[in-house]
Amino acid sequence: MSKNIVTIGGGTGSYTVLSGLKNFPNVSLTALVSMADDGGSTGALISELGVLPPGDVRQCLVALSEHTEVILELMNYRFNEGKLAGHSFGNIFLAALEKVTGDFAQGVEVASDILKVKGRVVPITKNKAKLAVTFDDGTAIEGESNIDHANFIGKKVEKIFYKDNVKISFHAALALLNADYIVLGPGDYYTSIIPNIIVNSFKETIAESKAKIILPINLTNKEGHTNDWKVSDYVRNIEKYLGKPVDFILVNNENPLPEQIEAYKTEVKGEVLVKDDFEDPRVIREALLSYTVFEAKKADTLKRSFIRHDSKKLADCINKIINK
Amino acid sequence: MSKNIVTIGGGTGSYTVLSGLKNFPNVSLTALVSMADDGGSTGALISELGVLPPGDVRQCLVALSEHTEVILELMNYRFNEGKLAGHSFGNIFLAALEKVTGDFAQGVEVASDILKVKGRVVPITKNKAKLAVTFDDGTAIEGESNIDHANFIGKKVEKIFYKDNVKISFHAALALLNADYIVLGPGDYYTSIIPNIIVNSFKETIAESKAKIILPINLTNKEGHTNDWKVSDYVRNIEKYLGKPVDFILVNNENPLPEQIEAYKTEVKGEVLVKDDFEDPRVIREALLSYTVFEAKKADTLKRSFIRHDSKKLADCINKIINK
Repeated sequence: MSKNIVTIGGGTGSYTVLSGLKNFPNVSLTALVSMADDGGSTGALISELGVLPPGDVRQCLVALSEHTEVILELMNYRFNEGKLAGHSFGNIFLAALEKVTGDFAQGVEVASDILKVKGRVVPITKNKAKLAVTFDDGTAIEGESNIDHANFIGKKVEKIFYKDNVKISFHAALALLNADYIVLGPGDYYTSIIPNIIVNSFKETIAESKAKIILPINLTNKEGHTNDWKVSDYVRNIEKYLGKPVDFILVNNENPLPEQIEAYKTEVKGEVLVKDDFEDPRVIREALLSYTVFEAKKADTLKRSFIRHDSKKLADCINKIINK
Repeated sequence: MSKNIVTIGGGTGSYTVLSGLKNFPNVSLTALVSMADDGGSTGALISELGVLPPGDVRQCLVALSEHTEVILELMNYRFNEGKLAGHSFGNIFLAALEKVTGDFAQGVEVASDILKVKGRVVPITKNKAKLAVTFDDGTAIEGESNIDHANFIGKKVEKIFYKDNVKISFHAALALLNADYIVLGPGDYYTSIIPNIIVNSFKETIAESKAKIILPINLTNKEGHTNDWKVSDYVRNIEKYLGKPVDFILVNNENPLPEQIEAYKTEVKGEVLVKDDFEDPRVIREALLSYTVFEAKKADTLKRSFIRHDSKKLADCINKIINK
């Protein structure tokens, strides 16, 4: 019988998980996507057109699309001239579909049809989701993009929350309740993982869900956010927000190539790799690393980490758990 | 056996012909589309991104698409806020596809696949096509959009031509040679009809083609361009450029409603309807008028005429000719 797998995250991490898992038979995939993104092309479309953030959804749709290679290239194509400069075509596509259908989630359904998506992509909420963080020194930051670029070092996060009432969408809740397995992450802790968990009624819904939770631990720490975090820090902090223990903790045991570490170090200072300090029967140690060196795309202003999970290795590992 | 029908024109006229004809069985449709358009959303994309004009192609793709209604709405959706204001989504879609595939015609093929297009849409040329007109008083106008908005009254057009070497595309020539019937127009004489005929090698190709040529005469005259033209003026002038006689001349014999004439008069002065003065055995007089009142869309800066052919009536008329 087909297993219902739900992934939770932002764009890049979910892309990796989904593009590996979609090749397995007997899995039914639903990607729950954070709606907190407000930077870059996505941010411009939100503020100019009043739409919900298309960027992360686009990446999940592309991951699950069974359309031709050229269509996937089209979805990720970024204009680099004129007034459209910086916009990815796929973001404009989703923004226009929201305008035409009058509803972001419905637009995503239509996009899924056009892109021959295997599975479903579901926004975690239908509400405008403005993320905020407060610190122990009394300061605060608003907006996902501002949080993403801020340096937290030297202060302690007191609270991460939404400015307004941001409620889990009906279809996202339904997916959690019907899930056999939930894959939480990988992804940036403060800007991709937690923004999903803190939507209203998420905690209550996942408390009711019988799904086993799989937690692929991030390979690297985000400079300024999670410097020096170890595996145990991720597990402890995520479980605190989640309100229940996770069932499987996936930890990579391969070493990156020296040039991967070098490339990564040009972007971030300090500790690079997440140290494996956690002795726990739920930990599964596997070779999960990609040896592909990613290059930042032209006209793509986002920073890209160069140490990533290999989507096939990660999917194989998840598949073994599912078929145990 | 299936009949090969080629339509020639710009956006609006071809849309009318194609959306009627696509419902008939046993016709294989190819739309040849002028590449002279350089105004509005299309013009902005040309000048900012260096692409070929998508606007008229978009209309033909939508006419022939068998996809859902919401997809067709999406293709015609015009943004009305922010930096994207004024752009139709479909134009951005075709521009991005040209960038991704590296070739406009190939981008149109991919678009046809996505949109489930019944038939083919073929740009008349692959070259940048900058239209120019010279007058008997020594003046000249460059650019389709400038020509479109100019008033010719009081002068005589000496020559309408392309500034550079603009050659018929291979696939457009092939379509003409394989055609059983060619439907030329309706459409603005100087900016939709003639721009197709004057591409290099068009005249030589149509001279070799055994296709019967069907000429649906425009219902109204364009103010400042073809004021007071009668049916015979259209036939005589088009045949001069074509280098051979047309085979069927379709003339409407229905009267517009008073409110249609009123609506039209708010846009143009002088003579509205094209007078039927032509006694010729090739003339077919039929009821071809649409009684739908078209409204100019918000954020759509193009002027729309309110007296149009009815696509079903026109298609029925063409179908009778084909099956005679």
